[in-house]
Amino acid sequence: MVVTGNRFCPFCPGHEDKTPPEVLAYSTEGLRGDSRWSLRVVPNKFPALRVEGDLDRQGEGLYDRMNGVGAHEVVIECSDHMKTLPEMEERQVAELIWAFRDRVMDLKKDRRLRYVMLFKNHGEEAGASLEHPHSQIIALPVVPKRVQEELDGARKYFEFKERCVYCDILRQEVRDGERVVLQTEEFLAMCPFAARFPFETWIVPFRHDSHFESIQEREVYNLAWMLKSVLKKMDRVLEKPAYNLIIHTAPVQEAGCSYYHWHVEIIPKLTRVAGFEWGTGFFINPTPPEESAQFLRD
Amino acid sequence: MVVTGNRFCPFCPGHEDKTPPEVLAYSTEGLRGDSRWSLRVVPNKFPALRVEGDLDRQGEGLYDRMNGVGAHEVVIECSDHMKTLPEMEERQVAELIWAFRDRVMDLKKDRRLRYVMLFKNHGEEAGASLEHPHSQIIALPVVPKRVQEELDGARKYFEFKERCVYCDILRQEVRDGERVVLQTEEFLAMCPFAARFPFETWIVPFRHDSHFESIQEREVYNLAWMLKSVLKKMDRVLEKPAYNLIIHTAPVQEAGCSYYHWHVEIIPKLTRVAGFEWGTGFFINPTPPEESAQFLRD
Repeated sequence: MVVTGNRFCPFCPGHEDKTPPEVLAYSTEGLRGDSRWSLRVVPNKFPALRVEGDLDRQGEGLYDRMNGVGAHEVVIECSDHMKTLPEMEERQVAELIWAFRDRVMDLKKDRRLRYVMLFKNHGEEAGASLEHPHSQIIALPVVPKRVQEELDGARKYFEFKERCVYCDILRQEVRDGERVVLQTEEFLAMCPFAARFPFETWIVPFRHDSHFESIQEREVYNLAWMLKSVLKKMDRVLEKPAYNLIIHTAPVQEAGCSYYHWHVEIIPKLTRVAGFEWGTGFFINPTPPEESAQFLRD
Repeated sequence: MVVTGNRFCPFCPGHEDKTPPEVLAYSTEGLRGDSRWSLRVVPNKFPALRVEGDLDRQGEGLYDRMNGVGAHEVVIECSDHMKTLPEMEERQVAELIWAFRDRVMDLKKDRRLRYVMLFKNHGEEAGASLEHPHSQIIALPVVPKRVQEELDGARKYFEFKERCVYCDILRQEVRDGERVVLQTEEFLAMCPFAARFPFETWIVPFRHDSHFESIQEREVYNLAWMLKSVLKKMDRVLEKPAYNLIIHTAPVQEAGCSYYHWHVEIIPKLTRVAGFEWGTGFFINPTPPEESAQFLRD
């Protein structure tokens, strides 16, 4: 059960010594005969950033440089090498959400870390280098450019309207219905208006909160079901696509705010980003979100 | 000569009726027995934008929409299906640069068009859907987001220093030398400091000008030689990589300015952009520009 395509997997049970020691593990001992853990979080063996040392900002002529202080962790989502997120039990997907939350709560204690990026690359075309189901956590000493843009945009809308733009989007999408993929009491899954990519799908909580880590127990299980359901639909309609899943949330050191609203964005990897997209930041989407949503709904 | 891999090519000589009528053609009749043209520019048969109609900006609840007014053209760089840019004669590469310039001069007469994006996707992984050597021109009714960011950044630097940031970069890079790939009297080819991608290379003119279309005759031929040389080096070091080439230039309806400086950016497609890059706008580059430059130089 350790090997597929004859390649050794460092994330499979029995190979725990092939990763750095875990920073978090959940155990559902007894449920799986051969495995003592059901989920592990370990530091990335080849981290993009390291926790040790100072930022040490300095100039180099007109350029600026600083050290890559931060954390880079891997969430090994389950012990079964071959299982994908939509194939897992709801309980297992909920464990991933709990793990994300637990790690944010721990990482934010380090006041140098200003943003925690929670994401999953599934499939080689989406940038996954290992097959075993896993997600990633990167804690950064700065608020990333794209995150800041989204925060700024949401704040400008709030200053103008005195309402959260995501709350407004939820109301309009529920009323219109044509971009809705799935709706529960807690979450709306939808293809966003003017989506950048075919079948781009967002999962947005109805309860306004700027920070993912404030997620409530009931929402964890509901989100687990939502994730499973949406990914299952994508697997069916798009024949098991590669995808990127990113949790959009507010900077960890900042207090809860009324203008930003955490949510999940899922982008199946169906098109290539080329010169036009790189140069402009604009995207040409051959499948309108209304069509994507209809395909996913039906 | 028309077919490779048994696929019909609409850009090859003899198939001129398979593209919309050309908006520009250069001819070096006599030089090539079977071909009357050496370069053609034709409207894209499947355009992202169309010249007809108005922008017709309107709201849809809280969203905004407007028509895709603009132009989308293809530059068929030469008649030979199999020739790549670095394999072409310098004269042919110069024709591509002239064609870019001629089309910008023509398109900017339409005052609705505020930005002209000049770019080339080479190779399937870089988004090229046809093999025959070609580049693209997209004229837009808005200044793209990424372009505006670059302009704003350059203007802020200028307001602070009263110097062009690119002129400052040229001076520092020439002095440091370690990121220089190639240097002529007219242009510097360099791997930029804190490059986003392995082997990302910029070609920057020494003469300050905000607008590509102000390029001078002498610079055209020098740039042609530079492009050929840099791409040849990439072909050798990276084994003929796919790449995106983008001309960064100021908005066409704006007057020349002292804070922005046109240049060419070439990004070989060696890594995959995944969740982290999407979510943050940050890039993890395993090959520092100093190493990339050294590989390309040697």
